[in-house]
Amino acid sequence: MYDYIRDGAEIYRQSFATIRAESDLSAFDPDTETVVVRMIHACGQTDLTDDVIATAAVVSSARSALAAGAPILCDATMVAAGVTRRRLPADNEVRCFLSDPRTPELAAQLATTRTAAAVHLWEPHIAGAVVAVGNAPTALFELLTLIDQGFPHPAAIVGAPVGFIGAAESCAALANRTDLEFITVLGRRGGSAITAAALNALASSVE
Amino acid sequence: MYDYIRDGAEIYRQSFATIRAESDLSAFDPDTETVVVRMIHACGQTDLTDDVIATAAVVSSARSALAAGAPILCDATMVAAGVTRRRLPADNEVRCFLSDPRTPELAAQLATTRTAAAVHLWEPHIAGAVVAVGNAPTALFELLTLIDQGFPHPAAIVGAPVGFIGAAESCAALANRTDLEFITVLGRRGGSAITAAALNALASSVE
Repeated sequence: MYDYIRDGAEIYRQSFATIRAESDLSAFDPDTETVVVRMIHACGQTDLTDDVIATAAVVSSARSALAAGAPILCDATMVAAGVTRRRLPADNEVRCFLSDPRTPELAAQLATTRTAAAVHLWEPHIAGAVVAVGNAPTALFELLTLIDQGFPHPAAIVGAPVGFIGAAESCAALANRTDLEFITVLGRRGGSAITAAALNALASSVE
Repeated sequence: MYDYIRDGAEIYRQSFATIRAESDLSAFDPDTETVVVRMIHACGQTDLTDDVIATAAVVSSARSALAAGAPILCDATMVAAGVTRRRLPADNEVRCFLSDPRTPELAAQLATTRTAAAVHLWEPHIAGAVVAVGNAPTALFELLTLIDQGFPHPAAIVGAPVGFIGAAESCAALANRTDLEFITVLGRRGGSAITAAALNALASSVE
């Protein structure tokens, strides 16, 4: 017989209390802190704080947009699957265009990854949207390039692609932008779980 | 303009080469190494090797089961969403019972989390299945308890729940089993991305 806590609400309470006790969250305002706490919860690492950069208004911008019904645009189906629908304030659409039938041809035409090609299909939806890139550095680079070329601005970007080729560079590129509201994870860490956790914190201030 | 690699196959090749160059994979046989490399790829951390424990036959057991058509049973929809369907050798079913209509009542009845309750619904499917727990420690504890109570044995378990309450303890409990084939991540790390990456490596030996 194993002895463990079975009460889901109590597990959450103790998890967040442990994170707050062990993490240095002093760099973040109270709203951003709730987002960072959930990101730490998703990866089990309190030192994620060392790598998180957020603009001062990213949380308020994302929350206003979602309250007004903005969609969430994701680079990967895993990110979309990780959004807890009951936390969304306006039954917001959560969309991923990776398996859109137009994506493979677009990728071939643009000579890039399918994930980056799918970003082009965000165009009719991106003005004021909440955008989440949790997998592919190429998607984040493509998004920044398209914004430079005149794409409408999203309300907020969660940019946390993961890995060894391009992840650190794409997050650094996002962190250098002064025209966007964003939260990012510098370096190689990131991924769909951390990204979905950030979205879930942006969706609702309820812990 | 950003300068970055746009060729998906080349990104994978360089990613796996970087992981192999920077990680100490000496503790793993060649088959297990392919799984651990993908798990590292999913979290961006070469030191994940310190925490991975795998039984000698977990890879062969999982691959034989999947080749014979065994289902994959997941604790979370994110894990299920992360399985690359085209890598599956027999168009295997990938199932998650978290949103099954029976789960909430079962959770209330058993006084446990919905994720743990959903494990009970694996019973008709679990004999010889590949099981993946990437989110909830309670699901892994419940699985081990049910196996002790007579549940049929799965072919392999990927056990990598994440977080601060129960994750380390549930993975340690799995690591102590001598009656099961498993791969686990000791400590607080884990999560749906690492777990799905392990499944994708078990599904196919193709890198």
